[in-house]
Amino acid sequence: MAPKTYNSSLPPIPSSSTFDPGRPHTHTHNNSNTQTTSADCPFCHISAVFRPYNPANPPPPTSALLDPELTSPQASAFVVLSTPHLVAFLDIMPLSTGHVLLCPRPHRPKLTDVSPAESAELGRYLRILSAAVVRATGVADWNVVQNNGAAAAQVVPHMHFHVIPRPELRDKRSERFTATMFGRGQRDELDEEEAAELAGRVRRAVAEIVWADAEGGAKL
Amino acid sequence: MAPKTYNSSLPPIPSSSTFDPGRPHTHTHNNSNTQTTSADCPFCHISAVFRPYNPANPPPPTSALLDPELTSPQASAFVVLSTPHLVAFLDIMPLSTGHVLLCPRPHRPKLTDVSPAESAELGRYLRILSAAVVRATGVADWNVVQNNGAAAAQVVPHMHFHVIPRPELRDKRSERFTATMFGRGQRDELDEEEAAELAGRVRRAVAEIVWADAEGGAKL
Repeated sequence: MAPKTYNSSLPPIPSSSTFDPGRPHTHTHNNSNTQTTSADCPFCHISAVFRPYNPANPPPPTSALLDPELTSPQASAFVVLSTPHLVAFLDIMPLSTGHVLLCPRPHRPKLTDVSPAESAELGRYLRILSAAVVRATGVADWNVVQNNGAAAAQVVPHMHFHVIPRPELRDKRSERFTATMFGRGQRDELDEEEAAELAGRVRRAVAEIVWADAEGGAKL
Repeated sequence: MAPKTYNSSLPPIPSSSTFDPGRPHTHTHNNSNTQTTSADCPFCHISAVFRPYNPANPPPPTSALLDPELTSPQASAFVVLSTPHLVAFLDIMPLSTGHVLLCPRPHRPKLTDVSPAESAELGRYLRILSAAVVRATGVADWNVVQNNGAAAAQVVPHMHFHVIPRPELRDKRSERFTATMFGRGQRDELDEEEAAELAGRVRRAVAEIVWADAEGGAKL
């Protein structure tokens, strides 16, 4: 399915930012046998259909840029961050409310397959996204998990960081966390109405944090 | 215990690098109530006693810069990476051989407490360190885990990434992994002789990867 048209006239951004909407990667990476897109990869599909937007000024929830059904006939995707190099979205089988995934746009199977520049960008947005998830959920504690290879319980072979809020150590969801993070047990499917609302809150929180950083580092 | 003298005459580095040995952070961070050192924090102690060295050209294992007993009377520390902003060392209670921790030098309780620049540097070295651990252990699969807050099973309140090799999904160590990653079960203590040898291999692998990156991105 062809992606909808991308409106490249972006709203203003914080002055210290160097946002460039760029283009998604569809060429083959030099010096590597890793293709930048993989036909079977669901995260490559998400990267292909969701165009970048300015994280400091996200489109409204009604924007075609954010339509969760752009991925049709695959499962809907609720995007919370979309830059030229990275995309983040709600996990479709969340371990807790606010469970999001952050991945590079190109198909990089493991963390060691990303470029040096991509690795720095992942680090930068992992902090921003963590702070946004805390703000959007009101849950102060969370895990970051990134699995490399089948023995490490990696399921989708396109590298991604999990950001997983942990409401309480002893509640039922927490028990489930330890059992299911590494491939066992049951996870609930996302409720689409709640997901759309939550994704909007995360996008707005990302924008607030990017603005605060640009203004000189307000405490997160 | 006062740290031993730091020899600031560093060997040559790859030309594209901008390594500066700098000084450890001991001042108070602006715009934040977070102190950059905490008297009770074992990771602040490690940061204080191990001076930065050039990751592209690590000191020999006999160097005073790497003496594991610099931390005395606290547990020995086996450093695998030490830059002006970050330090990485073997976990003293490893879940598997090659289990290392990467943290910022200043006392940052959670990932959201690091600066934007520190977050990018963490991302950059997380990739390098992962590749180095794979190379030093011969184990191709691994987990990256970073816990924020007590509910997320964070034990030392100075943020750190775990890099944990996963030799096989079904072996005993893997069973133990799921049970112990989040605070339950038993972990073995590090054997100091094996640890010294392993840390040397990881330091050399880091150097090889930094050189390869500087030479234009050889496949890791």
